[in-house]
Amino acid sequence: MAYGLLQGKRGIISGALNDSSIAWKIAQRAKEEGATFTLTNAPIAMRMGEIKKLAEECNAEIIPADATSNEDLEKLFTQSQEILGGKVDFVLHSIGMSPNIRKGRAYTDLNYEWFKQTLDISALSFHRMMQTAYKLDAINEWGSVVGLTYMAAQRTFPFYTDMAEAKAMLESIARSFGYHYGKYRKVRVNTVSQSPTQTTAGSGIGGFDKFFGYADAIAPLGNATADQCADYCITLFSDYTRMVTMQNLFHDGGFSMTGVSAEIMDLVNVK
Amino acid sequence: MAYGLLQGKRGIISGALNDSSIAWKIAQRAKEEGATFTLTNAPIAMRMGEIKKLAEECNAEIIPADATSNEDLEKLFTQSQEILGGKVDFVLHSIGMSPNIRKGRAYTDLNYEWFKQTLDISALSFHRMMQTAYKLDAINEWGSVVGLTYMAAQRTFPFYTDMAEAKAMLESIARSFGYHYGKYRKVRVNTVSQSPTQTTAGSGIGGFDKFFGYADAIAPLGNATADQCADYCITLFSDYTRMVTMQNLFHDGGFSMTGVSAEIMDLVNVK
Amino acid sequence: MAYGLLQGKRGIISGALNDSSIAWKIAQRAKEEGATFTLTNAPIAMRMGEIKKLAEECNAEIIPADATSNEDLEKLFTQSQEILGGKVDFVLHSIGMSPNIRKGRAYTDLNYEWFKQTLDISALSFHRMMQTAYKLDAINEWGSVVGLTYMAAQRTFPFYTDMAEAKAMLESIARSFGYHYGKYRKVRVNTVSQSPTQTTAGSGIGGFDKFFGYADAIAPLGNATADQCADYCITLFSDYTRMVTMQNLFHDGGFSMTGVSAEIMDLVNVK
Amino acid sequence: MAYGLLQGKRGIISGALNDSSIAWKIAQRAKEEGATFTLTNAPIAMRMGEIKKLAEECNAEIIPADATSNEDLEKLFTQSQEILGGKVDFVLHSIGMSPNIRKGRAYTDLNYEWFKQTLDISALSFHRMMQTAYKLDAINEWGSVVGLTYMAAQRTFPFYTDMAEAKAMLESIARSFGYHYGKYRKVRVNTVSQSPTQTTAGSGIGGFDKFFGYADAIAPLGNATADQCADYCITLFSDYTRMVTMQNLFHDGGFSMTGVSAEIMDLVNVK
Repeated sequence: MAYGLLQGKRGIISGALNDSSIAWKIAQRAKEEGATFTLTNAPIAMRMGEIKKLAEECNAEIIPADATSNEDLEKLFTQSQEILGGKVDFVLHSIGMSPNIRKGRAYTDLNYEWFKQTLDISALSFHRMMQTAYKLDAINEWGSVVGLTYMAAQRTFPFYTDMAEAKAMLESIARSFGYHYGKYRKVRVNTVSQSPTQTTAGSGIGGFDKFFGYADAIAPLGNATADQCADYCITLFSDYTRMVTMQNLFHDGGFSMTGVSAEIMDLVNVK
Repeated sequence: MAYGLLQGKRGIISGALNDSSIAWKIAQRAKEEGATFTLTNAPIAMRMGEIKKLAEECNAEIIPADATSNEDLEKLFTQSQEILGGKVDFVLHSIGMSPNIRKGRAYTDLNYEWFKQTLDISALSFHRMMQTAYKLDAINEWGSVVGLTYMAAQRTFPFYTDMAEAKAMLESIARSFGYHYGKYRKVRVNTVSQSPTQTTAGSGIGGFDKFFGYADAIAPLGNATADQCADYCITLFSDYTRMVTMQNLFHDGGFSMTGVSAEIMDLVNVK
Repeated sequence: MAYGLLQGKRGIISGALNDSSIAWKIAQRAKEEGATFTLTNAPIAMRMGEIKKLAEECNAEIIPADATSNEDLEKLFTQSQEILGGKVDFVLHSIGMSPNIRKGRAYTDLNYEWFKQTLDISALSFHRMMQTAYKLDAINEWGSVVGLTYMAAQRTFPFYTDMAEAKAMLESIARSFGYHYGKYRKVRVNTVSQSPTQTTAGSGIGGFDKFFGYADAIAPLGNATADQCADYCITLFSDYTRMVTMQNLFHDGGFSMTGVSAEIMDLVNVK
Repeated sequence: MAYGLLQGKRGIISGALNDSSIAWKIAQRAKEEGATFTLTNAPIAMRMGEIKKLAEECNAEIIPADATSNEDLEKLFTQSQEILGGKVDFVLHSIGMSPNIRKGRAYTDLNYEWFKQTLDISALSFHRMMQTAYKLDAINEWGSVVGLTYMAAQRTFPFYTDMAEAKAMLESIARSFGYHYGKYRKVRVNTVSQSPTQTTAGSGIGGFDKFFGYADAIAPLGNATADQCADYCITLFSDYTRMVTMQNLFHDGGFSMTGVSAEIMDLVNVK
């Protein structure tokens, strides 16, 4: 499926690590839909090298940037405009990392320096990207900014620990900055709350596989895949959705609105 | 526990069918806390007779009323004021019935005449009670109206069928009428969204017992009991909560805000 | 803008009254995007005749149907499939009417027969449409059903009176039926919560014009137009949004997520 | 009004700065209701000295503590238990400060070091308090933790800048920790989302007075006062609300659920 929805549009896509990344799929779909864009990731992530394959496939340049550095982000927006030949039309934020999760700390035994890193990398970076773009006036009128999030921002999923707070903050930033960027340049800002997805990041979470099956048995349409998420994000970058802003949009096969499914009642062993 | 929180207050309590009813517990607790009140139920429900025990225990008069009849509700408010010696301070709405559930109709095969009955009995009756009270000016300034509801108004629980719509409407009526009654007499209107509870009404729903266990394994504090719900409603009728209005208040041991629990992950058989 | 997003898709569009109707714009856009569809409206509304212009423009047949009649809806789905040459892929529900609003009844003085009509026409009709389609298996796998709604389902707007309850019910039906139709045929069901829009229906509401300006001054992007709403609905009917279901989607320039705007603070006269 | 609801209960109350503070009122009411407690505030805030008056009035000891210091919080819980003679039953978190607001930085020009301070002081401190209590097992079974918050966590109020993110995080922490503390000791954790209140903190926000009037004209019951908030918090500390947990509870005279009021429509100058 490709209708040229992003023909003539320029963008910046962060967070493509390997071909299981949602951002990877979004880049491929954006390419198919006619966009040109730059790719960015943390310098460390880039050493792993797979992103170069994606860059070749998409004919896109890579601009390494630490999302916690204002300077790197300035460089990202400045160089992207030079490379792409003008202001950008869309930005994808797909950045998240929790040292507490990586190191298996319980939510009741968090290391606060790591908690702050979780917030800086996973949430503040969203504000930094937009503040940088705002100051450089780097996004075209009617541009679109999307951040990827997870429903742990609304309800507790114990394994998600301090990423729940990061996502709650991320979604709040979408609302707050959406207000200001809307007034300034009619730029819209939304978050997409995606089903659990079998990415490198997702799989790093303990008990992920079982939870994936649980969510799949609750959602009437099953879990949404990374490919489907990419399709959805294309609509949000396109001109069809100009008046949707400051929203958190569930892309989850109906999980968020299902209290319980008949299927899960069959799978659960309670008296 | 009894601190006299409702000392000097007058009320109307609907929906006490037998000693497993939430309304029954609320009546007992209201009595302990010093309130005087009338009891009401549908004429049919009353024939079953148990409510008389409650009336004796609480020294309360019973006023039969069909909650779908404006005339009956006028009588209810007029007689209550006569019996109690003044305007009322609190009203409990605990009324719900779905012919479609009783007769086992699937949600995709509803009988619409029954659907309308579900709405009339379970939701419109809440508006009727308040409109009647409003016109008669039967509730004191700073009075409190509470309706009992269930979280199926926010998310789908398949077994709940058309009661989901009735509860969504009930909660909407709380907001809408709360606005008007707040302006008029500073009367507040809220709904309490209670855990699945082993009442006569609850148990009539297919698969209820298993679902009860499921909810209990998700809620960090377990399911809230009818007794605990009564305690909570006392605070809402008391003067401690005068500025809480138009809210839907979850009383559910945390179920509503728990995406999944470690416990349920252990009980579920997915790969 | 037209990319052929609905190429090869068949649909049913209700509620186009005249060229200020949102449904009218959706029909025009669906045509441009390559869809074929039938139009439907209440027999009374059709006598006003403007819909014929739309039908000619879109090369669409009109099937009059009373949305409170199961028989009419059966005819609608049966004939649509015959005319279009197969099951349908999308359905638009844009039906709402409140006799209480028309006749200027205050929310505290509602006529309950009219209230029931409001619910029957504006909300139950959504269930009827889907139940009819479900029984006839008239919607293709991965089809999409959209209902138009308003934010009065979440918060009180006094002038909206009993339509608030109708919209709360409509959104609940989207969740409930979305669950079942998702399991059955992977059909998704969503509601779009649109800005106040200067349609015939909207303008019938007292004080609408002033409220329109108020909302416009709060929403960072201003109020969304009917044309923009049509664009958005196209994405929901397209294959880009297959995993979005049971959601209420705000299309309102950010109004729903803005507590207050700097602009409105300048326009308001409080000390 | 005082019914002895907190008779025999021990607590910790943070954030009482002067007699316009909500925490100040809560301390007074907790005293009246029979509780014993310690008071705490940042060492800097304490130098201003007014808290000593409150301490005398309440017969309470003051334990200075920097809420961003694990050591100080350990001392707070350890000493409180010694002073009060046992584990505590309730904890109030009323701590918030934004250097960006103090120094008048626009939301699109935030200083990130200050943003991190906002988060550390206003949100992480809530987690720190609970993690400290959890590790020391310092809260009795069925204890209650309340944090004060504001609706900017749900919708944008431009003047609130980065405190919106802090409050979104605070509310997320209530859900996340509420899950764990519920399982561990049946301790409940909630946030109270209070009307704009004329405290020292509130008044520091630009345009506060006008916004106060605006909110007051929207809320059907008007803005809730600090005194009323104290009454409400008493119920949350009492045994009447044991099963309410992980909730964000609006205490705002209905503001949160009112889209627009007739009164504000009269006060606003739009065409």
